[in-house]
Amino acid sequence: MNYKMMAYILGNIMQAEGLLMSISALLALYKGEINELRAFLITIILLLVIGTAMMHFAPKNKRIYGREGFVIVALSWIVMSIFGAMPFYLSGAIDGIVNCLFETVSGFTTTGATVLSEIEGLPMSILFWRSFTHWVGGMGVLVFTMAVLPVSDGRAMHLMRAESPGPSVGKISSKIRDTAKILYAMYLVLTVVQTILLRLVGLPWYDALITAFGAAGTGGFSNRAASIGAYGSPAVEMITAVFMVLFGINFNVYFFLLIRHFKEAFACEEMRVYLGVIAASTLAVAGNIFHLYGNVWQSLRYSFFQVASIITTTGYATTDFNMWPTFSKAVLVLLMFFGACAGSTGGGIKISRIIIMCKTAKQDLMRVLHPHAVTTVRFEGKPLDDKTVFGVRTYMNLYLIIFVLSTMVVAINQFDLVTTFTAVASCLNNIGPGLELVGPMVSFADFSPLIKLVLSFDMLVGRLEIFPMLVLFAPSTWLRSKGHLDRRLRARNLF
Amino acid sequence: MNYKMMAYILGNIMQAEGLLMSISALLALYKGEINELRAFLITIILLLVIGTAMMHFAPKNKRIYGREGFVIVALSWIVMSIFGAMPFYLSGAIDGIVNCLFETVSGFTTTGATVLSEIEGLPMSILFWRSFTHWVGGMGVLVFTMAVLPVSDGRAMHLMRAESPGPSVGKISSKIRDTAKILYAMYLVLTVVQTILLRLVGLPWYDALITAFGAAGTGGFSNRAASIGAYGSPAVEMITAVFMVLFGINFNVYFFLLIRHFKEAFACEEMRVYLGVIAASTLAVAGNIFHLYGNVWQSLRYSFFQVASIITTTGYATTDFNMWPTFSKAVLVLLMFFGACAGSTGGGIKISRIIIMCKTAKQDLMRVLHPHAVTTVRFEGKPLDDKTVFGVRTYMNLYLIIFVLSTMVVAINQFDLVTTFTAVASCLNNIGPGLELVGPMVSFADFSPLIKLVLSFDMLVGRLEIFPMLVLFAPSTWLRSKGHLDRRLRARNLF
Repeated sequence: MNYKMMAYILGNIMQAEGLLMSISALLALYKGEINELRAFLITIILLLVIGTAMMHFAPKNKRIYGREGFVIVALSWIVMSIFGAMPFYLSGAIDGIVNCLFETVSGFTTTGATVLSEIEGLPMSILFWRSFTHWVGGMGVLVFTMAVLPVSDGRAMHLMRAESPGPSVGKISSKIRDTAKILYAMYLVLTVVQTILLRLVGLPWYDALITAFGAAGTGGFSNRAASIGAYGSPAVEMITAVFMVLFGINFNVYFFLLIRHFKEAFACEEMRVYLGVIAASTLAVAGNIFHLYGNVWQSLRYSFFQVASIITTTGYATTDFNMWPTFSKAVLVLLMFFGACAGSTGGGIKISRIIIMCKTAKQDLMRVLHPHAVTTVRFEGKPLDDKTVFGVRTYMNLYLIIFVLSTMVVAINQFDLVTTFTAVASCLNNIGPGLELVGPMVSFADFSPLIKLVLSFDMLVGRLEIFPMLVLFAPSTWLRSKGHLDRRLRARNLF
Repeated sequence: MNYKMMAYILGNIMQAEGLLMSISALLALYKGEINELRAFLITIILLLVIGTAMMHFAPKNKRIYGREGFVIVALSWIVMSIFGAMPFYLSGAIDGIVNCLFETVSGFTTTGATVLSEIEGLPMSILFWRSFTHWVGGMGVLVFTMAVLPVSDGRAMHLMRAESPGPSVGKISSKIRDTAKILYAMYLVLTVVQTILLRLVGLPWYDALITAFGAAGTGGFSNRAASIGAYGSPAVEMITAVFMVLFGINFNVYFFLLIRHFKEAFACEEMRVYLGVIAASTLAVAGNIFHLYGNVWQSLRYSFFQVASIITTTGYATTDFNMWPTFSKAVLVLLMFFGACAGSTGGGIKISRIIIMCKTAKQDLMRVLHPHAVTTVRFEGKPLDDKTVFGVRTYMNLYLIIFVLSTMVVAINQFDLVTTFTAVASCLNNIGPGLELVGPMVSFADFSPLIKLVLSFDMLVGRLEIFPMLVLFAPSTWLRSKGHLDRRLRARNLF
């Protein structure tokens, strides 16, 4: 373990968080929220002082191995969440340390699950920070840091791979720093466009920005308890729905559009399946809820918004979909697991993994039918290599085990089965609301502190795509002797 | 496709079914149930006439390929179920063709899901046939047929592999016919012992036999609407629970005991994990339901029975576990998926697959941590080969897809989510009861005919371990041109 390098990168991230938090401090100053200003300033000073101190380690050996990349990513997110929770705690906006931590992890991981039932009464600067964590967490704090950090490509790739969603990271540019900058630029532009559009249809700047943060990061925190439904505006809903769908698309597509490679952009198989699933689900749900609204347009409006919100793992709501009929709820629960495209800000299993699972299932069946036939499965125009398939199966295997274990632990709280199941599904897939007692109009407040910590762990597991969190907590990561043994054995060419 | 051979084997199976059904006919004669006797006789005559006619195809070419093995197995079970349903229909014991079919498929697949709410009023011969299907289906009709059929080993192995539960079929004897005979002998002896024990603690012979059929096949049909709970006898419950556990153990273990290889028998890793899971689940559930019964012994009694009933996928009940707290229900739902040991009469995913999934998950994680280390995973004392792991992952992949698709279709009936989810889980894992509207004290009667057919399909998919049913319905199985093309290409050495 290169501890000095780890400290150095963590210090960098803490500095970055301090700078990002200062926006909220300025808002608190501007709005005269003195209590909140104090909370933000204390946290910012702590972040900057500790961060700067840690950067003084200035390591000579800057090498990071894959395992260390995972550890750094996992630690970064935990440290970020702990400091990110401090303003909530110090200002007294949220009761209890665990609640503050849950809300912050939910923010950074772009889950959007909340422990708050009263939202409108909270100070503006606090709600701003709460939603801003979505925006920061959406693209990944490390990606942001990398755009600034002076690290070489090889090392940065380890970090980026550990933080980025999806089975594989496409290198947009040959230089990883350029990739990070381009990603953030596109992300920023889309967010700004959405904010302006929302302002144009009548939302105040503040609400427009908060709503755009939640959509961009596919988070789901709103500054209204009734979520987007509170505005009662079809225009706001449609703009938000369309942008949620846009933020759920692989950002490589936008890069291709940017460099005018339109053919490559529209050829993206994952995007086409993703849009197809959205269209089909919207129609199915609209048909199923038609009798509730008695009007094709209304049914489509509610259906499209909710399908877009859930498949992108945002979690905004315009109505209490917990009241919808079973078939619609079953579709939404399924979409919770699907998630958005790889390389987007969305969570879940990701459409590309679902495609690979279905295609390999068909191939496996064909192998049974025609044992001597050679079949090749193509994805995104290229034959699927064994390594990718192996990766997807490994992921699904670990995902299933973590899902089952979490559900059993959450069941200890003895809420009903649907609440228990969808609470875990919602957190592990970074969505926000579930059904029943964690439905869109209720909160996670009633879970015990232990369960809230388990669900926070699940949110981090989901956002960081399993490995970093498992590596961080695996004993063999920290057992020095084992590492030495490995190195000794390797030196003898034993493996 | 060797159609003549298929017809020949199907004819054999129909004859066998006719003979097996004649026991019920004799009971109807003895009890003077004239209407039922007529129904049984008509079916038996049809089975024998058609069966004998089909056997006259007497194929010269007796070769069966893997694909044909799957098709024969799938067709056999469908044909058996259709004729098996006739007595219910002709006697008027069960209303509607779909209900009759559902009940029969549920019987043969040892699921035990019922559409009947009134059971006590039905004629004895009808209830006997209903439970006897469990016993016949438990060990596999083809295994039975093979013990009688004059087929060579190579061919029979294809059939046996397609029908037997679990990732791999251990060949107990070098001769497959001997294996089948030994299996059936052990199965028969265990059933007889259980029946005698139940008689000794006070059950009438008829009830003892019916209860033993349900336990032996891990089916779950009882001749009482309140299942085993109706007897109110701790002795009956404990005997049944212990025998359910015994029938859930890999029959290879009994074979080792039989030939006095005690060390091999007790070394069985799958059995040890299976018994460990039962012990841990029993304690967990007992602790969770303690407040309901206020008594350690009572809690353990209900808990052990239900855990044994669900993990072995039998589905007997001694109490309405749908009324238990969430944690207990979550444990039971989890055990529904686990299932019993491979090579037993139980259903579900099977303990060995669960072990392999967990072990490979750990291995995959280690590969991420130590990319250069070579790790070998051992199962049952031997290193796990890639083929087995590949088989398990293929199975899980297809299982997940079928589960999700079935759930979405069943959701059309708009029962609540727990009912929908557990109905599919119960049928696909061959258990019987689920929760809520398909709980142990209710029935599957309210589902629409279409959904009942889908659930019947799931029961067959679960009992035959996915492949036979998928191969039967795969278009490429039946497209002659495709086969010809394959052969032409292969002749040219193109693949």
